[in-house]
Amino acid sequence: MFVSKNLSVNGKNHLTIGGLDCVELAEEYGTPLYVLDEDLVRENCRIYKKAMDKYYDGKGLILYANKALCTLFTCRVASEEGLGLDVVSGGELYTAIKAGFPMEKVCFHGNNKTQQELEMAVDNGVGHIIVDNVYELELLDTIAASRKKVQNIMFRIKPGIDAHTHSFISTGQIDSKFGVALENGEAFDIIKRAHEMSNVRVTGIHCHIGSQIFDIEPFLKAAEVMMNFIGDLKDKLGLEINELNLGGGYGIMYTEKDDPIEYDKYIEHVSEVVKSVCEKRGVKLPFIYMEPGRSIVASAGITLYKVGGIKDIKNVRKYESVDGGMRDNPRYIIYESEYTDVIANTA
Amino acid sequence: MFVSKNLSVNGKNHLTIGGLDCVELAEEYGTPLYVLDEDLVRENCRIYKKAMDKYYDGKGLILYANKALCTLFTCRVASEEGLGLDVVSGGELYTAIKAGFPMEKVCFHGNNKTQQELEMAVDNGVGHIIVDNVYELELLDTIAASRKKVQNIMFRIKPGIDAHTHSFISTGQIDSKFGVALENGEAFDIIKRAHEMSNVRVTGIHCHIGSQIFDIEPFLKAAEVMMNFIGDLKDKLGLEINELNLGGGYGIMYTEKDDPIEYDKYIEHVSEVVKSVCEKRGVKLPFIYMEPGRSIVASAGITLYKVGGIKDIKNVRKYESVDGGMRDNPRYIIYESEYTDVIANTA
Repeated sequence: MFVSKNLSVNGKNHLTIGGLDCVELAEEYGTPLYVLDEDLVRENCRIYKKAMDKYYDGKGLILYANKALCTLFTCRVASEEGLGLDVVSGGELYTAIKAGFPMEKVCFHGNNKTQQELEMAVDNGVGHIIVDNVYELELLDTIAASRKKVQNIMFRIKPGIDAHTHSFISTGQIDSKFGVALENGEAFDIIKRAHEMSNVRVTGIHCHIGSQIFDIEPFLKAAEVMMNFIGDLKDKLGLEINELNLGGGYGIMYTEKDDPIEYDKYIEHVSEVVKSVCEKRGVKLPFIYMEPGRSIVASAGITLYKVGGIKDIKNVRKYESVDGGMRDNPRYIIYESEYTDVIANTA
Repeated sequence: MFVSKNLSVNGKNHLTIGGLDCVELAEEYGTPLYVLDEDLVRENCRIYKKAMDKYYDGKGLILYANKALCTLFTCRVASEEGLGLDVVSGGELYTAIKAGFPMEKVCFHGNNKTQQELEMAVDNGVGHIIVDNVYELELLDTIAASRKKVQNIMFRIKPGIDAHTHSFISTGQIDSKFGVALENGEAFDIIKRAHEMSNVRVTGIHCHIGSQIFDIEPFLKAAEVMMNFIGDLKDKLGLEINELNLGGGYGIMYTEKDDPIEYDKYIEHVSEVVKSVCEKRGVKLPFIYMEPGRSIVASAGITLYKVGGIKDIKNVRKYESVDGGMRDNPRYIIYESEYTDVIANTA
């Protein structure tokens, strides 16, 4: 059993991806080699999009989170599949621009955007800038004013949710460098302040509780907290928030131990929560954004290496060296994340 | 007190490096900015070179370990100061070639060199290839034969020394992916095999016991073990090894807690050990190589960042974001290594 459905074994006992012989790919293109199955990337895009249509009347936009794999190709595929794009740096934004991505469907994230990056975003007509902190808010308002523009913004909120994932990639709690906290009033204060500014327009709120999350509960809880905050903003400030960006972080299968949620089920259940809170609090149904990244590309891709020296040290350990490392797989050295490996020529 | 002697504070209370105002450097060149003090790099090169002249009659070569910072500039400085070069990849070798570095003074390391890298080394006349394992030895002999060349090689030996450093960067023990072990006979066997080959010439042995080592003892112990191995090879194989490469790993001062050894003292004491074992075992004094990298450039350099958003979360933590991160400072995320930071505009 393979961790991805596009992997199989052919008559030569060679691993295949999307039907192509991996040994032949390695010979033709050299190693290390990233291989991405375009068909499966597109299929993954459509799973999210269809679920949004089915369970939320299409009143939402799936954004491909570019940080998962930022290339001209992935930007173009996301665009062709009708997705938006989530970018987290000037470099990712540059790639999107070069790919001809429609800028109004881009959300620009980041906890420490530079002045140059914010100028680049405003000048290129990025749809939404997700503001992280007061410093950025003031800088952005000044930049937009100097361009005589009004920039649509959302705020990154820490909803105070425990995402049940590794502490290194858990970001929804108050002790995080990302965003402003709900529980101490920071989030309310910054939105109140932005609401009084002339060159930014608060259209939405955003949260992202972490990465590689396998439980659906934290996502539903986050949606509920965020919707109630929209209710609070209406009650206390008379401010109507019409956009809710629920971020990403949906777990994928790196090894057989991982048990990902069905992504369409997630949209089904989250839609129910959103609708229910709307009714209870008397607010309009918001337009919803979701930001899957890894779950769109990672399951469609593999990395091919060539084994070089093998060191079998008796009674100690066996080392097998490949022609790649930390640069292409930093996750292991950072938090010992596990991967599945297959010997492609004797699969 | 600063961790490097080229740092100071000027009349504006700005940090200076080599006498230059860091705030002005940041304004002129932008951030993040690596700044390297050429004078101190050269001075550091000379400390090692002078000690080799003084304590070992100049019968050795200091190799700048390119992995510490590989640029055309550092290659040229090393060359001008009369140093050799230690490279660990085709990319580093390429940089050395482009810098016009004399190839006969280059040692090529690596535990998993590819066929292309070995061909590149042989074709460009690299002085020594430091062979790591049997797979590489056979590949190299075949490549050299196809070029009708005889390639000078050394072997990377695991001397079985505990380097008293972080386990992630300790490499002298048997359970390491680098080199062949002494204690189980691997090292002897591979050298015996190489000695019988036609297109490689075993001129030396090499060890590298780890990085950021502050004790002198493990280095002296390693030199003793290696010299005794040279004695064994003479006794058992009649093979004269005339070159001893003792690697690097000399600790530098990242914070005030670090207490580096004086590098010339190290050469003084190591020379004594080498001479003493030579006398005892009746072998000739070998030509010595040493491979300092970090201690040549790190103490001469700093990275300048600009602080962006500051997040002071009451009763939780204060976050200050800079315009750089994991990419330029991977050591922290890998093993929580500490650094010294200074606020350059209110130093």
